[in-house]
Amino acid sequence: MDGSSQADALTIAIETLTARFPGQLTTGRGLRDEHAQGDSWHLPAAPDAVFFAESGEEVSALLTLCNDLRLPVIPFGAGSCIEAQVQAHRGGISLDLTRMDEILAVRTEDMDCTVQCGVTRQQLNADLRATGLFFPVDLGAQATLGGMAATRASGTTTVKYGSMKDLVLSMTVVLPDGEIIKTGARSRKSSAGYDLTRLLIGSEGTLGVITELTLRLFGQPDCAQAAMCSFDTIDAATRMVVEALQMGVGLNRIELADQLQMQAINAYAGSDWPEKATLFLDLTGSEPAVAYDLTILEELARENGALRFDKAETRDAYGAIWRIRHSALYASRSLRPGAKGISTDVCVPISRLPECIHEIGKVVKESRIVAPLVGHVGDGNFHLVLLCDPEDEEEFTRAKAVNETLIKMAIAMEGTSTGEHGVGLGKKDYMALEHGGALKLMRTIKRAVDPNDIMNPGKIFDL
Amino acid sequence: MDGSSQADALTIAIETLTARFPGQLTTGRGLRDEHAQGDSWHLPAAPDAVFFAESGEEVSALLTLCNDLRLPVIPFGAGSCIEAQVQAHRGGISLDLTRMDEILAVRTEDMDCTVQCGVTRQQLNADLRATGLFFPVDLGAQATLGGMAATRASGTTTVKYGSMKDLVLSMTVVLPDGEIIKTGARSRKSSAGYDLTRLLIGSEGTLGVITELTLRLFGQPDCAQAAMCSFDTIDAATRMVVEALQMGVGLNRIELADQLQMQAINAYAGSDWPEKATLFLDLTGSEPAVAYDLTILEELARENGALRFDKAETRDAYGAIWRIRHSALYASRSLRPGAKGISTDVCVPISRLPECIHEIGKVVKESRIVAPLVGHVGDGNFHLVLLCDPEDEEEFTRAKAVNETLIKMAIAMEGTSTGEHGVGLGKKDYMALEHGGALKLMRTIKRAVDPNDIMNPGKIFDL
Repeated sequence: MDGSSQADALTIAIETLTARFPGQLTTGRGLRDEHAQGDSWHLPAAPDAVFFAESGEEVSALLTLCNDLRLPVIPFGAGSCIEAQVQAHRGGISLDLTRMDEILAVRTEDMDCTVQCGVTRQQLNADLRATGLFFPVDLGAQATLGGMAATRASGTTTVKYGSMKDLVLSMTVVLPDGEIIKTGARSRKSSAGYDLTRLLIGSEGTLGVITELTLRLFGQPDCAQAAMCSFDTIDAATRMVVEALQMGVGLNRIELADQLQMQAINAYAGSDWPEKATLFLDLTGSEPAVAYDLTILEELARENGALRFDKAETRDAYGAIWRIRHSALYASRSLRPGAKGISTDVCVPISRLPECIHEIGKVVKESRIVAPLVGHVGDGNFHLVLLCDPEDEEEFTRAKAVNETLIKMAIAMEGTSTGEHGVGLGKKDYMALEHGGALKLMRTIKRAVDPNDIMNPGKIFDL
Repeated sequence: MDGSSQADALTIAIETLTARFPGQLTTGRGLRDEHAQGDSWHLPAAPDAVFFAESGEEVSALLTLCNDLRLPVIPFGAGSCIEAQVQAHRGGISLDLTRMDEILAVRTEDMDCTVQCGVTRQQLNADLRATGLFFPVDLGAQATLGGMAATRASGTTTVKYGSMKDLVLSMTVVLPDGEIIKTGARSRKSSAGYDLTRLLIGSEGTLGVITELTLRLFGQPDCAQAAMCSFDTIDAATRMVVEALQMGVGLNRIELADQLQMQAINAYAGSDWPEKATLFLDLTGSEPAVAYDLTILEELARENGALRFDKAETRDAYGAIWRIRHSALYASRSLRPGAKGISTDVCVPISRLPECIHEIGKVVKESRIVAPLVGHVGDGNFHLVLLCDPEDEEEFTRAKAVNETLIKMAIAMEGTSTGEHGVGLGKKDYMALEHGGALKLMRTIKRAVDPNDIMNPGKIFDL
């Protein structure tokens, strides 16, 4: 659509929505700017208007209208996405879903729940506390569950429980033409037809809007134990991880921080952990299972030449270890106050992890960018925060080049350009390299489901 | 296409394929009949020809040709599917993939492997034995892994390891126009674009042909313990299952057999197990974890009024319990020798399981059909074998009516018409009831991916 016809469409949309849903649409600069960027490091791009939906029916009404008018709609949850998934780079309406924050049902006997898309995982887990159940996907951000499904989010406990892809049973979705559908059943499994749930998870709002989710829940484990463990090389740390996974040790989390990240943590927290490649380990289960697995881990650590193996002997010590891990991002940033970080993540087969980390380490060194590394090493997934001065264009370009090298390296190693952050605008240039002919099939599906290209257009790939 | 133009197309296809791939195409009655029905109870429908593919490139050549000619292609693996997925009810070419049975790579460090689609799970596990790894999806049939992915298969260990949907990392797929694509990466997770892997898993050959699969593997557990446990009611058995799941007991399998199934087993095996609702339990993990979980299960059994709790104290006893469970289907059939069984499965949220089993029990009783029941009760999934005389049309109709009642009941309980057998021709009449408007989206995708409707046409749904 050319600019003038989009402007006309917008005028009609604003008039229609304002009349029909008083107080739910704004074109004010402040709110538009708040919906321009989220937490991402990419350039902001404000929408023309922001619509606050309060129900699935309202989402449907909005989409029906915008589909008729050929006007872009960009779903917006907590705005915690990193790869510019919420940027309105083609204008249109940002669809704010945060008012849809109701927990609709918790079924303890079925160990599942149904929530509106705007519920955050923190809100859900607070609500679940008394039931003894919890929802395990554990990431850094205060993200909404709808947004987490849309980007196929995962996190520290994915090694044990899986990612959003594994834990959503069914969803209510509004399609681009306004039709409201339900994907999947509430049963634990089904072989009845195409897996629309999984097709929509990770589609980043390009195929429709997720308005409700039915999620699997789990019992709080009886016992949890943590440990930290330092190595001279990342290679040795990874070897230990592989062995622990092969032995089926009940790992709830197994996280890696590199030397620089540990320096950052010490500087930030005033601690004196060895500034070496460090594993953060978390075991959960029954008491005898955890106790046994902890001895196995200790043995594996020793066999792989660990320098130290510090167990958390108390509940406080357990909490402290995970506070240290969760402070990693803030600690990173304090390595270079005021610097903006290009936050990136890739995922490779675990056998390739030492090589990938080693090779990108050389590239980082050459680039002179400060870039600490943390990773969900049990999944072969790691994050690099490339700290650079946003005002210094030359440095920013160097940082972006490191990111590009990392992405290409991960793909060459049979891995992926992103393990959990998604594509958005940030990684779409690499989709052809990563997917080859499969990208054409993605485009075929997009064209069929959203023929007018109104849903988050230009994200993941261009048509 | 009308009959005469399909006949012309077939003539061209046969000539072309015979010339290009000598010895790989047959129109002989014997082989066509072998590809007409598989293990399903549905009426046979022989293809016009059978093509034995030996590589992905050959599959591509076949599809390119048949797409040009608008000729149906029906993928065929072990033929172990139940809902008429392999019937050539619109004629065309049965694509036999059993010659593509090579294990291409086993990567012990990454705990994954890549296989051609015609490899059976038994073949893979035999090959893996020396590595200490195994592939866990455990179903009754000697199925091929390609077929298992195509029907989104699961089985007794799904409660612990998940189904095919959870354990396939990536696939090579030939699309209807002959293009060969690779879906997904070999890394443990990815957020890079649409989840084509999951879209194709469970698509029953209607969107393309899966030719290679990269699968997750797991370490053989150190220790395994089994037990059998009888209850007066299915309700009590289910209550125990729910409690065990909530407590996070390391269940590898938790299977249910009803009273009639236990009678069948006793008659078949000459055993004297209580003829009551019975749970078959399997715990795997480290020795202390299993020992502890076994005491928990024993306690839960007692609290829920179990009549007996028989532990397998030896390796032989462990094997015996699982031999009994695996003999269930044969034992069922011996309840009425010569009778054909309508084998059906549904899956419901676990809280609805007692009611579902109770209500269908009443329907079965009224119908006077003999119908033993076994189930993967940890997933809310159960199978009913409706034993009836294939020659007795009236009885066959009664048995089909029971199946229909069961399907509608499961859907009304927020469950699904099939937990693991798939749709094929057998359950397609219920897709509209189960999926509502979502069925339209499935059709949209099918039309976009396979515009000439050559891939297993008329399965899952009609266009």
